[in-house]
Amino acid sequence: MPDIISPIAQTHPQIEFVDLEKFFNPRSIAFIGATEDLTKFGGRCMRQMIDFGFAGQIYPINPKRDQVFGLKCYPSLADLPVAPDHVGIVLPATLVPQAIRECGALKIPFATVFSAGFAETAQPQDIQAQADLLVLARECGVRIMGPNCNGMINFVDAFALTSTATINGPKKKAGDIGIVGQSGGASQVNVMWRAQQLGLGVSYQVSCGNSVDLDMLDFAAFMLDSKETKVVLILAEHIADGNKLKALAQKALEKGKPLVMVKAGKTAAGSKAAASHTGALTGEDAVFDAALKQLGIIRVDDYSELYMVASILRRGRLPKSNRSAAISISGGNLVMLADLGAAHGVEWPAYSAQTHHHLSQLLPGFSSAENPTDLTAAAIGQAGKFAKAAELILNDENIDTMIPVLTIANSAEINALAELSNSSAKPLVMLWTGCASDDPNLTPTSLIAKGHAVFQDALPCVKMVEKVQDYAAFVHRNQKRALSRPTGLNPDAVQHILDHSTPVISEYWAKQVLSHYGIEVSKELLVKTAREAVDFARQLNSSVALKISSPDILHKTESGAIRLNVKGDLEVQTAFEEVLKDAKRYKPDATIEGVLVQEMAPKGVEMLMGMSSDPSFGGIVSLGLGGVFVETLKDITHRLPPLSQDEALRAIEQLKGVDILKGTRGKGPFDLQAFAHALSRLSWLIYDFQDQIEEIDVNPILVFPGDKGVKVIDALIIKKKQHQK
Amino acid sequence: MPDIISPIAQTHPQIEFVDLEKFFNPRSIAFIGATEDLTKFGGRCMRQMIDFGFAGQIYPINPKRDQVFGLKCYPSLADLPVAPDHVGIVLPATLVPQAIRECGALKIPFATVFSAGFAETAQPQDIQAQADLLVLARECGVRIMGPNCNGMINFVDAFALTSTATINGPKKKAGDIGIVGQSGGASQVNVMWRAQQLGLGVSYQVSCGNSVDLDMLDFAAFMLDSKETKVVLILAEHIADGNKLKALAQKALEKGKPLVMVKAGKTAAGSKAAASHTGALTGEDAVFDAALKQLGIIRVDDYSELYMVASILRRGRLPKSNRSAAISISGGNLVMLADLGAAHGVEWPAYSAQTHHHLSQLLPGFSSAENPTDLTAAAIGQAGKFAKAAELILNDENIDTMIPVLTIANSAEINALAELSNSSAKPLVMLWTGCASDDPNLTPTSLIAKGHAVFQDALPCVKMVEKVQDYAAFVHRNQKRALSRPTGLNPDAVQHILDHSTPVISEYWAKQVLSHYGIEVSKELLVKTAREAVDFARQLNSSVALKISSPDILHKTESGAIRLNVKGDLEVQTAFEEVLKDAKRYKPDATIEGVLVQEMAPKGVEMLMGMSSDPSFGGIVSLGLGGVFVETLKDITHRLPPLSQDEALRAIEQLKGVDILKGTRGKGPFDLQAFAHALSRLSWLIYDFQDQIEEIDVNPILVFPGDKGVKVIDALIIKKKQHQK
Repeated sequence: MPDIISPIAQTHPQIEFVDLEKFFNPRSIAFIGATEDLTKFGGRCMRQMIDFGFAGQIYPINPKRDQVFGLKCYPSLADLPVAPDHVGIVLPATLVPQAIRECGALKIPFATVFSAGFAETAQPQDIQAQADLLVLARECGVRIMGPNCNGMINFVDAFALTSTATINGPKKKAGDIGIVGQSGGASQVNVMWRAQQLGLGVSYQVSCGNSVDLDMLDFAAFMLDSKETKVVLILAEHIADGNKLKALAQKALEKGKPLVMVKAGKTAAGSKAAASHTGALTGEDAVFDAALKQLGIIRVDDYSELYMVASILRRGRLPKSNRSAAISISGGNLVMLADLGAAHGVEWPAYSAQTHHHLSQLLPGFSSAENPTDLTAAAIGQAGKFAKAAELILNDENIDTMIPVLTIANSAEINALAELSNSSAKPLVMLWTGCASDDPNLTPTSLIAKGHAVFQDALPCVKMVEKVQDYAAFVHRNQKRALSRPTGLNPDAVQHILDHSTPVISEYWAKQVLSHYGIEVSKELLVKTAREAVDFARQLNSSVALKISSPDILHKTESGAIRLNVKGDLEVQTAFEEVLKDAKRYKPDATIEGVLVQEMAPKGVEMLMGMSSDPSFGGIVSLGLGGVFVETLKDITHRLPPLSQDEALRAIEQLKGVDILKGTRGKGPFDLQAFAHALSRLSWLIYDFQDQIEEIDVNPILVFPGDKGVKVIDALIIKKKQHQK
Repeated sequence: MPDIISPIAQTHPQIEFVDLEKFFNPRSIAFIGATEDLTKFGGRCMRQMIDFGFAGQIYPINPKRDQVFGLKCYPSLADLPVAPDHVGIVLPATLVPQAIRECGALKIPFATVFSAGFAETAQPQDIQAQADLLVLARECGVRIMGPNCNGMINFVDAFALTSTATINGPKKKAGDIGIVGQSGGASQVNVMWRAQQLGLGVSYQVSCGNSVDLDMLDFAAFMLDSKETKVVLILAEHIADGNKLKALAQKALEKGKPLVMVKAGKTAAGSKAAASHTGALTGEDAVFDAALKQLGIIRVDDYSELYMVASILRRGRLPKSNRSAAISISGGNLVMLADLGAAHGVEWPAYSAQTHHHLSQLLPGFSSAENPTDLTAAAIGQAGKFAKAAELILNDENIDTMIPVLTIANSAEINALAELSNSSAKPLVMLWTGCASDDPNLTPTSLIAKGHAVFQDALPCVKMVEKVQDYAAFVHRNQKRALSRPTGLNPDAVQHILDHSTPVISEYWAKQVLSHYGIEVSKELLVKTAREAVDFARQLNSSVALKISSPDILHKTESGAIRLNVKGDLEVQTAFEEVLKDAKRYKPDATIEGVLVQEMAPKGVEMLMGMSSDPSFGGIVSLGLGGVFVETLKDITHRLPPLSQDEALRAIEQLKGVDILKGTRGKGPFDLQAFAHALSRLSWLIYDFQDQIEEIDVNPILVFPGDKGVKVIDALIIKKKQHQK
C-alpha cells in the first residue's frame, strides 16, 4: 500500500497505451473487399480514401478484379509488394478470421474490421465469434479496431478509412479537436460534421464500433499525444475499465489537454439490488459521474455541447477563477446573461478602482460601471470604444474571463474584439446573437474558423463557460498535488477482522473495522449475558441502547430486536432478554453473536457514508443525509477513493443538506471538519480493501455541534462473494 | 365573494384590453422628426417605413423640409390634409408633450414616442417627466407606446415604424408568431431576426420601451386577437399588474393560443425582509414562476427558446399526454434522445400489439420494436420504409408525439416524413442533426419555413417537447373547468377576528382563523390563570405544551417561553408560571394575552404552508417541508390562490419531500389528501382576505399516517399595514 499516490492515476499496475502512429498514419494501406460499386460499403470506403488525398500507397484487395478506381488490385494480402501498416476489412463476418490470420502472417500491426455480424446482434454465436476474434488477434499479434465499426479519419495527414458521407466534397482543413466514438452516426455527423459547420477544425475522428480489442481510450490516448490535437471529445456508451480511464485522465492532465465526454445510457441502467442503503442508492450513472468529476473529465449533456465547450478549451487559456465580466450595449441581453451566468456558477465581481478610473477617462460621463456593464448610454456615438472598454476590463485583476455581448454590430467593432481575443492571455468568449451590419462574410462561423470562441445564445455560452471554469479549477488543484496516506490507519487489524468474520459483518465488528482507520464510533460492548450488560451500562453511567448482534439480521429496527434509552439495572436486564426474544421471533435460525450494549449518543445531525462497488471503477465512496432522508430526499453524492480531507470537505459541500450542517436559526454549525476527516478515513479503508469488501453502510454517523466531532452509531460491512467463505 | 370562478381570470373588475387595430394597421401615419439623414434615428425610421412597403399614406413632419425621400413634408400635424391614425415622434424629450397635445387636438388615437430621456435615466426630473406624460396623454385621449422605445413591425400589412436594421433587405414573409418586448436589441435581434433566420415567420413585433401607457400585455392581447398570430412570445422584464396578466392568460386560453415568456432579472431581486418563514422564502422570481405555471404561460430560459418552442406550438397540434415515440437508424442518437427525454418528462411507452404486428409486416425480421425504435438492422436496404414505420407508430393509440431522428438522409426519406407531419393530427417533431445527402436546398430551415417542427439537437428538442406537453396538460385541465368554493368556509367569523385583532395575530387567534376555514388545529385553550391551565390539561388527559401567547413574541422557541411534554397538575402549574417569567425576561414590555395550553400531538411529518404578498400578484400560497428543513433544504413551492384540492395535491407532488409523505421503509404513507384539503382551504382564506392579510405562517402542520388527517401545531398571521390599527 503506497504512502503517496497521484490523485488521478490511482492505478496499479500502470497502464501503457498502444503506439497507434502506424494505425492513424500508415505508410501504406490495404483494403480487403475493394470494389467500385458505390452502393456497397467497400466501394464507398475506397472512393472516400482516394478522394480524401491519402499520400501513401493504397492496395485494393479483391481476387475478382485487376483494378479499382484506377489502382492496381491484388488477389490477396500475400500478393502485395510490401506488407502494409494497416488493413481495412470489409468481408462477411465468417471470413474475417482468415483475413486476420493473413495479417498476422505478414506481421501487419493493425486491422480495421468494418464487418458487422458480431456481438452487436446479441446472438450467442455472434458474441462467441467476437470473443474468438480477440483470441485470434492476440495469437496473430494484430491489433484490431471494430468489428462493426465505421473507421477513422486523419485530417492531419489526409487519411480516411471510412464510408461516411460527411467528408464528401473538398477536404476540410485539419484542426485541433480529436473525436472518438463507438457509433458512426453520432460521432461523424452530430459531432464532427456539425463542429466543422460551426467553423471548428478536427484533427482525428474514430468510430470504433464493438471495440473488441482497441477501445475508445486507446484512440483518445493517441490523440492526447498528437501535437495537433488540443482537446479530445469522447462519445461514451460504456467504460469497461476504470483504471484505464484513470490512466487516460492522468495523461490528459500531464499534457494539459482536456477530455470532454458525453455518455448515453444514463437512464437505462437502474440501480442494482443491494443489501445496504448506500448500494441501493448508487446507480451506474452516479458512479460514472463521480468518476468523471474526480478525474477532471468534463461531462456534457448533449453531443453539440462537446464541440461547443471545445471551442473555448482549444484556445488553451484557462481562467484563474470563476470571476467574469460582460459588456454590451444591449441591456436586455446583458440582464439575461447575468441571470443565466449566476445560475451557472459565473461570478460578476465589481471592478477595481483603477478600472473605474480608466473607464471614465475612456467614456466621459460613464461613472458607475457595474459588472455586467451596460454601455448603452455611454457608447452612443462613441464607435470603436467598445473593444477598448472590454480591454480595460479584461486587464482588471478581479476579472478572469471576458464575455462581450453583441447583437448587430459593424465589422470594425467585431474585428477589434477579435484582436483583443488574440492578444489577451485571459479567455475571451464572445456572445454574438445577431450579424455584422456591414459585412455578410463576417459571421460567428468565420470568427470560430479563425480560432475565436463565439456563442450565439446566452444559455450554452454560460453553460460552457461553467464547464471551463470547473476544469480550470480541477487543473489548478491537481497539477502539483500528491495525496498522502494519513497516519494511524491500521490495515493489519482490519485484515484480521476480515479474515475471521462472517460474510456479512454486523454492527459491532463493522465499527471495529472503522475505528482501526481512525473513525470515532459509539462506546459499546458486545455481551453474552445480562450480567455483562448491566455491568457495562453501569460503567457508561448513562442511558444505553441494546441491539441484537447477528450477521443474519441486517435491519435491526425492522426486527424489533432493539431497545433505546434504557436506564437502570433492572431495565437493562429486561431489555437484554427482550432483545434476544425478539430476534428469535423475527428469525428463529439466526446466528446470534450477542447483544450490543451501547451509549446513547447526544443529539447531532444524522449523516450517511458508505461504499458500493462498481464493475468498472471498483470501490466507490458515498455520502449524504442520513436517517429517514436517505431514501426520500436522495441527497447523496459519490467519489472515487481515496480522498484527502479537503476533497472530502468539497464533496460534503456538494450536498444540499450541507446547510443543515452549517446550521440555521440557532442550531449548529456542526462539525464539518470532523465529518470530512471521517469520510477521508473511510475513503482510505475503501481504497485499501476494495478487493475484499463489496459494501459498507455507515448510517447514521452523527455530526455534533461546534468542534465536538462525529460518532458512528450504526454500521454494516458486506464482504465480496469471493471473500465470503 | 363569488362561489364559482374561472381558475385563470380571478380578476375583479374584469380587464378590457384596448383595441389596437389602428395602432398596428393605420390608414395613414405621420412622423414627427422626419429627415433623410440616415445617421439619425428619424432618417432610419423613415427609410425603413418606406422600404418596408406601407400601403397607407405616410406624412413626414418637419418644418425645415418640403420633401423627405420624395414624400411631401408638412410643417406640423395641424397642416395635414387628414388626421392620421398613428403618429411616430422623434423629438427631444422636452418637446414631446407639445406633440402629444397636437395629437389630442386632432383626435389622433395613437402615438409612438421614440424619444429617450425619461424614466430610463433614473433621474428624478426624468421620472417626473414620464409621469407627467401619462397624465397629459390621458387628458388628450391619446394612447402612447414608449417613451424610449424602438417601435413596431407589422409583417401582415407591411407597416414598420422602427429604426432596426433587422428588417433591411427584402421584406420577409409574414408568419404566425407575435413578439413583444420592451428592449429593441433582444426582441428584434435575438428573437425576431433569429427566428426568421431559422425559417420561422413573424406576424407582429413590438419593442415598447418604458411602457408609460400601453404595455406589453396590451400588445400581446392584440396579437392573440389577430387571426394571423398563432403564438405570442413575450420578453418580460417586469409585470406590474398581475390581474392584467391573468386576463391575458384567460384570453390566451379562450383563443387556444399559447403565450411563451422569458423573464430577465431572475437573480436581481432578492427576497424581501419578512417576519414569517414563508415570506422570507418567497422571492420575486418564485412568485412569478408560480403565477406563470398556474396561468398556463409557458416559461423558457433563454431568448432562443421562445421561438424554438413556438416552432412546435404554431402547428396547433397538442399531444394528449406525455407519451412519445422516437425512431431512427442512428442508435447513438436514439439512446441520447431516450435519456434526455426521460430527464425532461417525455415518456416512451411500449407499442400496442397491433403496431408490433404491422411493423413486422412492413419490415420482415423486425420482431422486437422497442420504443425508442432503432431501425438500423431492419432498415438496411429498405429505403422509403422509415416514414412508413413512423406512420404506423404514430397511429398507435399509446403514442401522442412522434420524434423521428435523422442524421444524413436522402431527400425522399425526409420529404416522406414532412408529408407525414402534414397529414397527422398528432404532433411530429423532427430531430435532424445532419443534412440531406442529395439536395443542398433541403435543410432544417427549409422545412421549418414550410411549417414543420425541426430541431438539430436532442437537448433543446426534448426541452421544448416538455414545454409543449406541460402546456397541453394545462389546456386539457382548464378548458372546461370552473373552481367551486368549498362549503364550510366562514369568512364572517374571520373578518370578526381580523377586525378585533392586533397587527400581528398570535398563535391562538391565527389558529382560530384557520379553523374557521375548516383547517384542523391542535386542541388548545388560551388561559389566564394556572388554575385554568391545570383544568384544561386534566380535561385533555394527556401531556400538554404551554406556550406564551403574545403578539410581540413571534418566535416562541427563541424566547424560551415554551414548555413541552408537561404532565400532572403540579408540573402544569409550574410550567405556567415559568412561561410567564421567561416571556417577561425576553421582552419585558410585551403584551401578554395569556398562556396557551395545548395537547401534545402524536408524531407526524412536519410540513409548512403559508402566504406571502406580492405587489403584482397579491396573495401567494406557499408550501414545503417544515421544521428544521424549511431554511436548509428550501424545498418550497408557490401558487396563486385559490386552489382546488386537486391542484393543491399537484402542488404537493412537486415537492421533493413528497417522498417523505408517501412513505419509506415502514414509515408512512402519510395523509396527503388531508394535507391537500388543508392547503386548498388555506388558499381560499388567502384568496378572500389578501387585501387585509400580509403574511401567514403555518409551521408546522403535522401530517399523520394513513387517513389520520393533519393538525396545525403553530401559526402566525400578520395583517397588512393599512389594516393594522
